[in-house]
Amino acid sequence: MDPAPQDPITALLQTYNSLNSPHIPVLTEEPSPLEFHRYVALNRPFVVRGGAKDWEACQDWNVAKLKEVMEGRSVNVAVTPLGNADSPTSNANENDNLRNEYLPLSSALPPSIPFARIALAEKPEAINFWLGNSFSTTALHKDPYQNIYVQIAGEKHFVLFPPIAFPFVKERLLRSAVYERDGEGELVMREEDEEAEKIPVTTWDPDADPDLIEDGKGEEGRWADEKRKMCVRVTLRKGDMLYLPALWYHKVSQSCDEEGICCAVNYWHDMEFSGSFYPLCNLVRDLVLAGAGKGNDEREQKS
Amino acid sequence: MDPAPQDPITALLQTYNSLNSPHIPVLTEEPSPLEFHRYVALNRPFVVRGGAKDWEACQDWNVAKLKEVMEGRSVNVAVTPLGNADSPTSNANENDNLRNEYLPLSSALPPSIPFARIALAEKPEAINFWLGNSFSTTALHKDPYQNIYVQIAGEKHFVLFPPIAFPFVKERLLRSAVYERDGEGELVMREEDEEAEKIPVTTWDPDADPDLIEDGKGEEGRWADEKRKMCVRVTLRKGDMLYLPALWYHKVSQSCDEEGICCAVNYWHDMEFSGSFYPLCNLVRDLVLAGAGKGNDEREQKS
Ligand SMILES: O=C(O)CCC(=O)C(=O)O
Ligand SMILES: O=C(O)CCC(=O)C(=O)O
Repeated sequence: MDPAPQDPITALLQTYNSLNSPHIPVLTEEPSPLEFHRYVALNRPFVVRGGAKDWEACQDWNVAKLKEVMEGRSVNVAVTPLGNADSPTSNANENDNLRNEYLPLSSALPPSIPFARIALAEKPEAINFWLGNSFSTTALHKDPYQNIYVQIAGEKHFVLFPPIAFPFVKERLLRSAVYERDGEGELVMREEDEEAEKIPVTTWDPDADPDLIEDGKGEEGRWADEKRKMCVRVTLRKGDMLYLPALWYHKVSQSCDEEGICCAVNYWHDMEFSGSFYPLCNLVRDLVLAGAGKGNDEREQKS
Repeated sequence: MDPAPQDPITALLQTYNSLNSPHIPVLTEEPSPLEFHRYVALNRPFVVRGGAKDWEACQDWNVAKLKEVMEGRSVNVAVTPLGNADSPTSNANENDNLRNEYLPLSSALPPSIPFARIALAEKPEAINFWLGNSFSTTALHKDPYQNIYVQIAGEKHFVLFPPIAFPFVKERLLRSAVYERDGEGELVMREEDEEAEKIPVTTWDPDADPDLIEDGKGEEGRWADEKRKMCVRVTLRKGDMLYLPALWYHKVSQSCDEEGICCAVNYWHDMEFSGSFYPLCNLVRDLVLAGAGKGNDEREQKS
């Protein structure tokens, strides 16, 4: 309860939290295109519990089936020491692989999500296939796509933050790097040469942030309360769908099914850059990079 | 062409202008609810040329008809020395008057605009009737409503700016005041007493801003170029519809028909405060009020 005038970023976070709940809607059937578009306009997620349960992929896919359909084809596997294939290194596996590398699997999936295709007036830009084990984690990041994420086997655990969470996410400019096997078959990281362009990467791990895990004990960081109120956690089970709006930060981990796999697909649609949402997100970024985020990294003594 | 790093507000205005044209879409038939919702999501206006031309009101209303239908009923008329009834004084005439004071006229109008009612999932919150002569001007202001504005007789001239134009609009805290007739029948302004609460009022008149009227000659104000690129001008003629998105600044003036009147109605729907748009508009306001708008009022010497 601080009666002092607040900085504009804190006011933004608080206004957002006062108008938006961390409990997102859980629908039991697909929305119409217009209903879906209302979520798009708000840039707010929702879940459709069992929305894809009748898909052939949800009924049929298991280890034997996947092996059979993909027989004789070579696929790319991202192997890293800790399973963090998509962490501050590259996300080259999000590349429409279902209509390329994994084409034989695509007949068990609809070619689009009708409510999204109609609402957004375009076919999906990419359809991606995700297969991992329980070590696979995708580090917090955002994508410039409207994402319909569908769970096929196992479970996925999402930690979500809206685009205005920029003050928390510790964006840093990093050079990209890849893991390679050395002569002994050990994984070693190879950085790109010094000249390679640095890219902005989200380096915050919400699951390692004391403000989100220590439950109010100890010193609190700036915006501890705002983070807690903004954090959306969702678990998807077989046949569930998630609408993950464009530019939302997401960290994804998984639990395997009885066969030890976790499998999902997502449908990406281009986001709209006109209007005022994208320019306003950039404003938040500019402000934070110009110093409004100062104190984010530092623990502050509670008074 | 300034290569120096820009302040975040200037960057916001420039990004917005680079992604949005001041030439708004002119449709020749009504959009579907979903098509309409795409404009709502972008918070961007459009016109439907002739969208209401078949309405009974557009076919039938003239001075004789209005007098006949309203015979024997008393109505409120806002009279001010310069016709600026809605200027920094009050906008009490926007009050659902068509379903109250002007009820007898309402049968010549549809009870809602179907594409808006369906898209926004609610009946109009207010329907307002506007009757004026060529002296009537509505000063630049914004409303927290999705507005479908329909021209019935004469012409309306809109000057429009999006919500992120806050840095230009010179919001000031003013006490409200009314014009009253004195003993001689002269109009005099009566201010509310000193204790009355001040309300935020937009005091900028885009038509009196040298940056917008002097066409590049003389000293330019800060953001002269950004203002010019952001300014949307629209003229509505009999039967035309305008979608004026929530929180857009609008200044409205008019030209009369051959009988000397100008008549319009508008349908107001509540805006959505959840999501991130409203909190982000507040951020711009907070930043400007905290000083990011400094230099807006002052002419700056060009170097
Ligand atoms: O499933 C995952 O591990 C990551 C998914 C993801 O990043 C996405 O759908 O954009
Ligand atoms: O028609 C006018 O003069 C003003 C209209 C207006 O302010 C509105 O529709 O909100």
